[in-house]
Amino acid sequence: MRIVVALGGNALLKRGEPMTAENQRANVRRAAAELADLVRAGHSLVITHGNGPQVGLLALQAAATPDTPFPLDVLDAETAGMIGYVIQQELGNVVKDRPVATLLTQVRVDPHDPAFATPTKPIGPVYDEDTARRLAAERGWTIAPDNGKWRRVVPSPKPLEILEAEVLVFLVERGVIVICAGGGGIPVISLDSGGIIGIEAVIDKDLASSLLARQLGADMLLMLTDVDAVYLDWGTPQARPLGWVQAGDISATVFATGSMGPKVEAAVAFAVETGKPAAIGRLEDATEIVAGRRGTHIKSGTLLT
Amino acid sequence: MRIVVALGGNALLKRGEPMTAENQRANVRRAAAELADLVRAGHSLVITHGNGPQVGLLALQAAATPDTPFPLDVLDAETAGMIGYVIQQELGNVVKDRPVATLLTQVRVDPHDPAFATPTKPIGPVYDEDTARRLAAERGWTIAPDNGKWRRVVPSPKPLEILEAEVLVFLVERGVIVICAGGGGIPVISLDSGGIIGIEAVIDKDLASSLLARQLGADMLLMLTDVDAVYLDWGTPQARPLGWVQAGDISATVFATGSMGPKVEAAVAFAVETGKPAAIGRLEDATEIVAGRRGTHIKSGTLLT
Repeated sequence: MRIVVALGGNALLKRGEPMTAENQRANVRRAAAELADLVRAGHSLVITHGNGPQVGLLALQAAATPDTPFPLDVLDAETAGMIGYVIQQELGNVVKDRPVATLLTQVRVDPHDPAFATPTKPIGPVYDEDTARRLAAERGWTIAPDNGKWRRVVPSPKPLEILEAEVLVFLVERGVIVICAGGGGIPVISLDSGGIIGIEAVIDKDLASSLLARQLGADMLLMLTDVDAVYLDWGTPQARPLGWVQAGDISATVFATGSMGPKVEAAVAFAVETGKPAAIGRLEDATEIVAGRRGTHIKSGTLLT
Repeated sequence: MRIVVALGGNALLKRGEPMTAENQRANVRRAAAELADLVRAGHSLVITHGNGPQVGLLALQAAATPDTPFPLDVLDAETAGMIGYVIQQELGNVVKDRPVATLLTQVRVDPHDPAFATPTKPIGPVYDEDTARRLAAERGWTIAPDNGKWRRVVPSPKPLEILEAEVLVFLVERGVIVICAGGGGIPVISLDSGGIIGIEAVIDKDLASSLLARQLGADMLLMLTDVDAVYLDWGTPQARPLGWVQAGDISATVFATGSMGPKVEAAVAFAVETGKPAAIGRLEDATEIVAGRRGTHIKSGTLLT
């Protein structure tokens, strides 16, 4: 199967870990072992990843040289390089019979997307409220509460088109394992002149991965995170995991909290448009999820199988 | 012709300009117009670029979050993302009938390369001597004089193998204009286990481009900079430009000063190994250089043409 695999933030950094290069590499190594099992099972992988903590860190670092401010699209491109590099190197070390390549990916968004007026995507570290308010005043950030702490939030417009899809297909057809759409891809808008230009935003990597999977004709969209399934009534005594569900059923349910909302939205969009399954589950269960034995699987159609 | 084009630092930033994103984009746009002319003339391009000022700036920025130090190989990967992105976007805006793609590139070096004991590659901004000595003491840098000022210098080992050459060939054969080996590529060394791991260094982009041109079977290596030719007796009243020369003649000449040394070394290595020409000249003369009417051309063989 051709599978688009979206690596959640925990594949790069466990919650609460300092974001050192060593920690990121150790986590990526763990993810690479799981991905290698999928390759050995004969699957063709296109791998994406988030960049929330990383792009936030680079933005903090860039503030150290205020005479040379770099916009978010450029910082997104930096994170695609730094994270893609480590994934490529660690995956290449365990999958030696297939080439691995990292491709920069531009993603077209709508300049009139309402997200530009209402930033919601958290990036960078968490702060106490006083620090967050001071930084917001100093640097013009928008901030928002995040699990009892505060974080910077930036616009996260809806991805409309993966601009490098044709090139990605060339590589996939030649058996290359491709790392792309890092951090959800680099957001760009169309110019009246017919060209494109970057715009300051961070695209949700699950929504970008869903679009990518549709454009590449993938057989499955696999979103790997640190919870084993999508839960109904998450955080209550009645919490229960979803196994195989229909897109029509799950899309009526509200998954507003945490990062599960975009994952479910991404899964439903892929399943409904392609008739193929999307799955959500733990990184460590990747092989079992693809085999249909673990995780939450979302399908379109009227009959559950 | 299949041409590997190495963009000198001035294609990204004119000497003395502040390294803002806007300045870099404006310079890249100028370079893109020249490259587009080569594409329209029917040539197939693989484009490389340096990263000296950029990787130095990112290293300064990274020092602002000292708890998360990033090694030079990771910073090299960041610059490949940020610079590759801007080149890809600006070139794509003027070459609309050919896909443009940016590929991360790992380059194998020898862990026992003498460059690791003797750093020589300048990166980042220039400083007065007192500031440079203070930063060197604080941060463990090696520093060296640079045109009357001082700069940080880092190891620049000799590139031995472009690890993504196979994937690059796939793309070139499909008509994709590829941007790769950014900043000379990301330096890696072989592990006894059979894998690879990054190492802290910055590879010379002209030497990496020469190796790349040999591995890709390029018809020409074109190094674009801000001087119109290689000069004999540069900086003296007797200075005279070289036109068409034999590798055997030029390699006996000393070009120790500035950045011309690696360019000549890169040109000679390509010409001698492939029997095909390497050329050095001004960005603005790119089309005229390829046509053989400007720049310095280095060929192997015993007869000048």
